[in-house]
Amino acid sequence: MQRIEHRACFGGWQDVYRHHSQVLGCEMNVGVYLPPQAADAPCPVLYWLSGLTCSEQNFISKAGAQRYAAEHGIILIAPDTSPRGDDVADADGYDLGKGAGFYLNASQSPWAAHYRMHDYVVDELPAWIEARLPATSARAISGHSMGGHGALVLALRNPGRYRSVSAFSPIVAPSQVPWGRKAFTAYLGDDSRAWQAWDASVLVAHAREKLPLLIDQGSDDEFLQEQLRPELLQQACALAGHPLQLRMQPGYDHSYYFISSFISDHIAHHAGALSE
Amino acid sequence: MQRIEHRACFGGWQDVYRHHSQVLGCEMNVGVYLPPQAADAPCPVLYWLSGLTCSEQNFISKAGAQRYAAEHGIILIAPDTSPRGDDVADADGYDLGKGAGFYLNASQSPWAAHYRMHDYVVDELPAWIEARLPATSARAISGHSMGGHGALVLALRNPGRYRSVSAFSPIVAPSQVPWGRKAFTAYLGDDSRAWQAWDASVLVAHAREKLPLLIDQGSDDEFLQEQLRPELLQQACALAGHPLQLRMQPGYDHSYYFISSFISDHIAHHAGALSE
Repeated sequence: MQRIEHRACFGGWQDVYRHHSQVLGCEMNVGVYLPPQAADAPCPVLYWLSGLTCSEQNFISKAGAQRYAAEHGIILIAPDTSPRGDDVADADGYDLGKGAGFYLNASQSPWAAHYRMHDYVVDELPAWIEARLPATSARAISGHSMGGHGALVLALRNPGRYRSVSAFSPIVAPSQVPWGRKAFTAYLGDDSRAWQAWDASVLVAHAREKLPLLIDQGSDDEFLQEQLRPELLQQACALAGHPLQLRMQPGYDHSYYFISSFISDHIAHHAGALSE
Repeated sequence: MQRIEHRACFGGWQDVYRHHSQVLGCEMNVGVYLPPQAADAPCPVLYWLSGLTCSEQNFISKAGAQRYAAEHGIILIAPDTSPRGDDVADADGYDLGKGAGFYLNASQSPWAAHYRMHDYVVDELPAWIEARLPATSARAISGHSMGGHGALVLALRNPGRYRSVSAFSPIVAPSQVPWGRKAFTAYLGDDSRAWQAWDASVLVAHAREKLPLLIDQGSDDEFLQEQLRPELLQQACALAGHPLQLRMQPGYDHSYYFISSFISDHIAHHAGALSE
């Protein structure tokens, strides 16, 4: 465990740690924002899952979330988006392999050896955080695009684990869109029955816990029609009676300019749930 | 003139334009944030000058300033930090040549042909902005590091041109520190008398207009002792009776995490002056 960045920010500290993940079998970077309140008492934690091509850096440098985390006294944890290192399998293209872990546990060769981002984010990382940082075990989760998919799937698969969940521009039905079909075929194999356990629009049908889903989606998102398709989750939630607040934001695209414009609402949403 | 980026952000638009600069003799990118108020009426303008190695991208993607510009109805203009292109002179090292224009007009070969960032930022760019965008002629200026130097020098050299000026971590006395001495020697020649017209700590002694200077400086800035030396400006202002508010911010470094933490204060400061 090594602190490789340490920068004062909104009265707290934006840090980056590097640690060994046993689950992933590699060294991982993790962004950690400690709000000023963490100097005095343990704080609840919001996990943020980033999208394709991202590392731990994108969210911490571009979203402007620290201001709101400092206001509400919330720790922000931003892991990397895949295992890393020379001995980790990779593929050509930005949407498979490194930078594209899809927050699942891979079953297929050569991916199964390292690609276990679900277990890393759900189990190993919180245990690591809660043992070493002034963090309570109150957890919330959010993310963007592939990371929005991750946030929804991790919350739906693990009832009781998160107090609240939200997403920006999530891939809500990966089994039905090109990004998801490519990744799931590689990581999980050709049999699409194995994909259902990693698809939010399928998981809501069987969710034991009706955790409300808060989603912001830009209406001018360049990936909206082909990759994101929020109407598929909307239909699934309507059928299942699962609470969903889907906010279409006119004019907004897929970028961090969109995230920065609405991250205050998401952090306020999580702060409410985390303080209950 | 070409709009190469156009992204909804806090109810307004974060754009990037590409235009031909006659003063610089090259194509230049400019970041333009139009707040929501600009859809209805012309708005005042804050010019932001970035530091060494930066382009127009750093401020627009990392500072989180759009939120406050939207609150106050201010246009944010973020130019690049030097002329660009294959026929523009450059040097090894990050602190001379491209990305290091120092907001002056060079007199020495090979720099004099293109390096005229003072005239570009003070004259050509505002004329271009005010002719094409919903901008009033009410102008303010701010910047970071080399761009903090630029903001101070441009305001001090051009009384009446800016309603207000501020800086983060500025190079306040370039004639006396390594970054400035290297750049001034190259751009302006060996005779240090020519440097005085581009040194804020010298210019305050003769300022016709006592525009108050607002400066934020991190106490843990890695460049504080060798390159920034705010005490030299403090002494010069005390001698000249020039109003200076120098805020030392404990624990903060030279990064955009520092800027993002205090940019709201600066934009509020400029908003007050711009609305008078």
